[in-house]
Amino acid sequence: MAADFAFELEAVRGNARAGLLTTPHGVVRTPGFMPVATQAAVKLLTPEELASTGTRLLVANTYHLHLRPGAEVIAAAGGLHRFMSWPYALLTDSGGFQVHSLAARREVDDDGVTFRSHLDGAPLRLTPEIATRLQEELGADLIMAFDYCTSYPTGREEAVRAVELTTAWARRCREAHRHPSQRLLGIVQGAVFRDLRERSAAELLPLGFFGYAIGGLSVGEDASQTAEYAAFTTSLLPAEKIRYLMGVGRPEDLTAAIEAGVDLFDCVVPTREGRHGTALTAAGRLNVRQAALKTEGGPLEEGCSCYTCRHFSRAYLRHLVLAGEHLAGRLLSLHNLHFLQEFVASLRREIVEENN
Amino acid sequence: MAADFAFELEAVRGNARAGLLTTPHGVVRTPGFMPVATQAAVKLLTPEELASTGTRLLVANTYHLHLRPGAEVIAAAGGLHRFMSWPYALLTDSGGFQVHSLAARREVDDDGVTFRSHLDGAPLRLTPEIATRLQEELGADLIMAFDYCTSYPTGREEAVRAVELTTAWARRCREAHRHPSQRLLGIVQGAVFRDLRERSAAELLPLGFFGYAIGGLSVGEDASQTAEYAAFTTSLLPAEKIRYLMGVGRPEDLTAAIEAGVDLFDCVVPTREGRHGTALTAAGRLNVRQAALKTEGGPLEEGCSCYTCRHFSRAYLRHLVLAGEHLAGRLLSLHNLHFLQEFVASLRREIVEENN
Repeated sequence: MAADFAFELEAVRGNARAGLLTTPHGVVRTPGFMPVATQAAVKLLTPEELASTGTRLLVANTYHLHLRPGAEVIAAAGGLHRFMSWPYALLTDSGGFQVHSLAARREVDDDGVTFRSHLDGAPLRLTPEIATRLQEELGADLIMAFDYCTSYPTGREEAVRAVELTTAWARRCREAHRHPSQRLLGIVQGAVFRDLRERSAAELLPLGFFGYAIGGLSVGEDASQTAEYAAFTTSLLPAEKIRYLMGVGRPEDLTAAIEAGVDLFDCVVPTREGRHGTALTAAGRLNVRQAALKTEGGPLEEGCSCYTCRHFSRAYLRHLVLAGEHLAGRLLSLHNLHFLQEFVASLRREIVEENN
Repeated sequence: MAADFAFELEAVRGNARAGLLTTPHGVVRTPGFMPVATQAAVKLLTPEELASTGTRLLVANTYHLHLRPGAEVIAAAGGLHRFMSWPYALLTDSGGFQVHSLAARREVDDDGVTFRSHLDGAPLRLTPEIATRLQEELGADLIMAFDYCTSYPTGREEAVRAVELTTAWARRCREAHRHPSQRLLGIVQGAVFRDLRERSAAELLPLGFFGYAIGGLSVGEDASQTAEYAAFTTSLLPAEKIRYLMGVGRPEDLTAAIEAGVDLFDCVVPTREGRHGTALTAAGRLNVRQAALKTEGGPLEEGCSCYTCRHFSRAYLRHLVLAGEHLAGRLLSLHNLHFLQEFVASLRREIVEENN
């Protein structure tokens, strides 16, 4: 199955790269944005609609899916692709992000992390071996090493410990990972300490991962810091390996990250903002509730080819938002993902055309 | 434009009828089920999906749409068809149902009804003339006379008053209605008093409506009473006019109503039950939350051609329901409407095949 995976650079402009990620479930153009399907569903949208936005890679979450419905249920269904009826590529996060997001509900030791379920308080133990086995059961194409994701701000002492555990756990994930039709990515930690980022990358590179993620960012720091440390971290990574900046996906953040040489991104923002009544447009965010839209007969974005813009006016969408119709969140989520995928595709075209 | 409207019977079996309703927005086969788009949207579903279920006629609501976004906003958008991007036929209820459903928020006088808005308490006055004008602004193909819809139980005194006002208001609606590309339906009231139903029908028939609705049922009485009084009322109506039983649409109620000679129905049940995690199947209601579905790899209904059944297992849908993903409500609503439309279509085929 080894030939089913590849990452090739098609064009480079400065640090920015246009690449092709080949997986057993199709080719993904990079830079590429991954919508978030935490619970095996991108909120309110079908696989058919996601594909219509140009999406070819989704990210799901090991912690959430193992709590509900259980990795064994998904394995019995033939894996995550079949379970959620998604024919293209998938990536699962390892549960390491929940070390940050569920900080009040977990205890970290050298061997791993014990969570108290956010659903019912039941204990859930994740170690490098368990997280890897669960991800093998889920069956995504790309899987993530189990890491210690820090929050912001983080003191140097905790950041050091996060780097040390992340390295030790990455080695154990590398050893535990057996599945031939998956590829494992390591995650660089180090919070906002440059020397710790250097140390983390230096320790992970010899382990020979398929690609590298930049973790521990987009956890509360300013966007300028996200961009700065993302760029610094990409400078530490080998050019030929795919790079994934975790948790970033606002349009304004994507440009900087792509310029810094990032290949993959994920973020809940386009769908969350859609559900909250905000549309992404070339002119910026559009508050769909505003009175100015009351009689606007045009689409959210002139020339947009998404289903929402081809069928519905701003006035109608405003009505749906104000009336509390969840159809609004659905139609705005679809538009926002379409907008973001088109935006990333346009940045990619620029890289290819200005290849140097 | 008169030639744009027609109602023709294609087949009759006992009291049951198969007909064709022609409107400026297409032909509707009867018996025909109308999904409910109270606020100019069938909850969670797009026009494209509704059309895929075989739906060719929707019902929207004058009271709700005039409160929000306002009939004048919809008129400015080119009417309800264009506003909600629905290319097929539409019917609007007049607001008479809200005399029942918002009984605590309205005052009835001989001239009309004053509501206190369920949104902000602001007064909303509906009279036969206002309800007709608002429906002309909304621009549905079929519009309803403004009636006094009673609740259950209703004393004889109130039922008499409802019949008297409904007749007086129907006459005023008939006189007020001018729009050549709409047809007006009268509504028979009379609660569960046979002589009052007879009186109501006898008073409305000379006014010469395009069709007749059976109102004041499905307002709290037993299903057996709904069926009994629906059948009694259809026996009072001319065979050549279309008949609409308001608010009925559970599969078990449709069979009896169709046998009684009803042509049109509307009900929120298929979409509401879908949002609450219940699927309609040939074997009855399926509680999609139940543990038995945890690893069921088959569709909700074997052989169902809806998008949901073509792509997703019972196990996945159960997971979405339990995980609180609104995608579940969307996919179950789509299946339920598809199921109900197929069910009605199969009853129609039987009438055509067994034509006597």
